[in-house]
Amino acid sequence: MRYLFFILLMTVTFSVGGCTMLSPANHEQAEEKQFILHPIGKVVREYGKTMIVLDEKYQPGLSGLEKRSHVMVVYWFDKNDTPEKRAILKVHPQGRMENPLTGVFATHSPVRPNLIAISKCKIIAIRANVIEIEEIDAFDDSPVLDLKSG
Amino acid sequence: MRYLFFILLMTVTFSVGGCTMLSPANHEQAEEKQFILHPIGKVVREYGKTMIVLDEKYQPGLSGLEKRSHVMVVYWFDKNDTPEKRAILKVHPQGRMENPLTGVFATHSPVRPNLIAISKCKIIAIRANVIEIEEIDAFDDSPVLDLKSG
Repeated sequence: MRYLFFILLMTVTFSVGGCTMLSPANHEQAEEKQFILHPIGKVVREYGKTMIVLDEKYQPGLSGLEKRSHVMVVYWFDKNDTPEKRAILKVHPQGRMENPLTGVFATHSPVRPNLIAISKCKIIAIRANVIEIEEIDAFDDSPVLDLKSG
Repeated sequence: MRYLFFILLMTVTFSVGGCTMLSPANHEQAEEKQFILHPIGKVVREYGKTMIVLDEKYQPGLSGLEKRSHVMVVYWFDKNDTPEKRAILKVHPQGRMENPLTGVFATHSPVRPNLIAISKCKIIAIRANVIEIEEIDAFDDSPVLDLKSG
């Protein structure tokens, strides 16, 4: 009977102990507010053309954009998505050491706490889920987050 | 002895069973690409003033912004952060039914898949971690994500 009691106690201890290991992480998540972004498409360069290729499911969201001359492309500086780079708060603008250290919020630097990039682009043509643009200062395959009338 | 074996078996079953419940969710998260945003501050209105109040740890990022007349404020339409609203791809612009349904990417609608808002604001003054601005079309307490020289 003593063994039985001991084993029952261990059962409860391990079961509760094992699963509450997750509680501190859940607690932190609740404490630290965060928002989730899902890419809607990406930057593609092909045959000398520069394009924003949306995932097909987002195509209805383009309706009406054909009447606009420009689009504001919001994308993600995905190459800098590390905790170290996202902790940088001052940079030498344009990466030139002769430019004095400046707060990232006073620049358009690609390192910043939230890696949001914004570029106003001239629209050449829209076909289905593809927007051909004149140019964009973004790497190929950069994840696109949002588009707004420019 | 039979009891002992039974209890040991139940211990293993419940412990393993309880904790692997999380696996499917983790798996889904790994499959669907996503990026994480952390608010850097918020919109505050007090004593007739409109301010962007940054968390103190981000204050170094403001250095140099005092030389600028405008700042581009990137914030989050947090009141619309539900799966239902983030699935909306067409809206009546300005919420007026007489405006024909238009793709969200051809508008500045506050419902869109990624709830990014962009507003160019005139800077009145900067003190420590607080930027006083002329005005912004955002609710009080809207989470601020980024600032760029305007």
